[in-house]
Amino acid sequence: MENKGISKAVINRLPRYYRYLGMLMDRKTERISSAELSRQMNVTASQIRQDLNLFGGFGQQGYGYNVSHLYEEIGKILGLDREYHLIVIGAGKLARAVGCYVGFQKRGFRVEAYFDRDPEKHLTDSIPVYPLRDLGSYLRDNPTDIAVIAVPAEAARSVVPVLDQGGVRGIWNFAHTDLEVPEHLTVQSVHLSESLMQLSYKINH
Amino acid sequence: MENKGISKAVINRLPRYYRYLGMLMDRKTERISSAELSRQMNVTASQIRQDLNLFGGFGQQGYGYNVSHLYEEIGKILGLDREYHLIVIGAGKLARAVGCYVGFQKRGFRVEAYFDRDPEKHLTDSIPVYPLRDLGSYLRDNPTDIAVIAVPAEAARSVVPVLDQGGVRGIWNFAHTDLEVPEHLTVQSVHLSESLMQLSYKINH
Repeated sequence: MENKGISKAVINRLPRYYRYLGMLMDRKTERISSAELSRQMNVTASQIRQDLNLFGGFGQQGYGYNVSHLYEEIGKILGLDREYHLIVIGAGKLARAVGCYVGFQKRGFRVEAYFDRDPEKHLTDSIPVYPLRDLGSYLRDNPTDIAVIAVPAEAARSVVPVLDQGGVRGIWNFAHTDLEVPEHLTVQSVHLSESLMQLSYKINH
Repeated sequence: MENKGISKAVINRLPRYYRYLGMLMDRKTERISSAELSRQMNVTASQIRQDLNLFGGFGQQGYGYNVSHLYEEIGKILGLDREYHLIVIGAGKLARAVGCYVGFQKRGFRVEAYFDRDPEKHLTDSIPVYPLRDLGSYLRDNPTDIAVIAVPAEAARSVVPVLDQGGVRGIWNFAHTDLEVPEHLTVQSVHLSESLMQLSYKINH
């Protein structure tokens, strides 16, 4: 499928479509009109039609969208029809929580190891915690798609070259910093403290 | 200060300015030009000048910006010059991690209680865990600014009216759902699974 021309805004909306369609499937809804999906998602029906047309227009006049088909197609576009091998850099509370969260999703994202300066720190999980100095050799033996980074800024920056050399393709960054990475590496950052500041701003204005 | 005309895009950039200025303060940098800040933050100098001018233009020709002054002013705009009383709905791993994370920030965001259906579940923290059914009476006795929601979607939706009636002003939502709230309540959502899907999309395209 040719998605080169798809804007970032549309890409950012796709996971939300996916979430709503998942809810509809849980409720055994088989088909839905763009008008009804529009009402539930609080976006215009024309935006929905426009967005979904970009991917080949899965709707049919007078029928609407077949929920499970659309769910599956959007899943494929998002790359959810395959497995990902993940590691987590850090083994503190945030690292563990994100690791568990990924596990909950049960969507082919498999957390296989944690890496920490102090691998003795946490032993309550079935997923192994290795010393950070073994990261390079681990990656040589265990092809890894995604690294979750949940360590302080300084440590986060220093781990990027090791991940890159080890063939990791994507970084899910929770560190309080913007990571500079080579062009072939993808970073998606979750800046929790910035989100909290936006909330405090809104409360005050 | 009159901020009514400030766009959402600028507001979204302010926490990032704040973060960079904080790093500069850590490095004992006293002043910085828009050109240098631009280089470090990877945005244009003219955007920096334009953004900061909106708040009264803290820069001086030929001198640049006084780092600690600008840091303090942006902090005030973001509402970081006061204290917030927080509670966390949920006491699972994600709830605990977010609660701890907020604590780390040491910026006047004080987590004072967790609420969970099963308050016996976790006892390792110095912050109390109360039964969820006591939420209403807690809020009557303890004015609370912000509620972090880290429970499943269904439970998240059902807790909103209690928070609203209890005078909570902002919700930091980690539940896998969009929350409908009355207009006087502010919601800031962190949709972790959508962020992960955006990463998997980018890895595949």
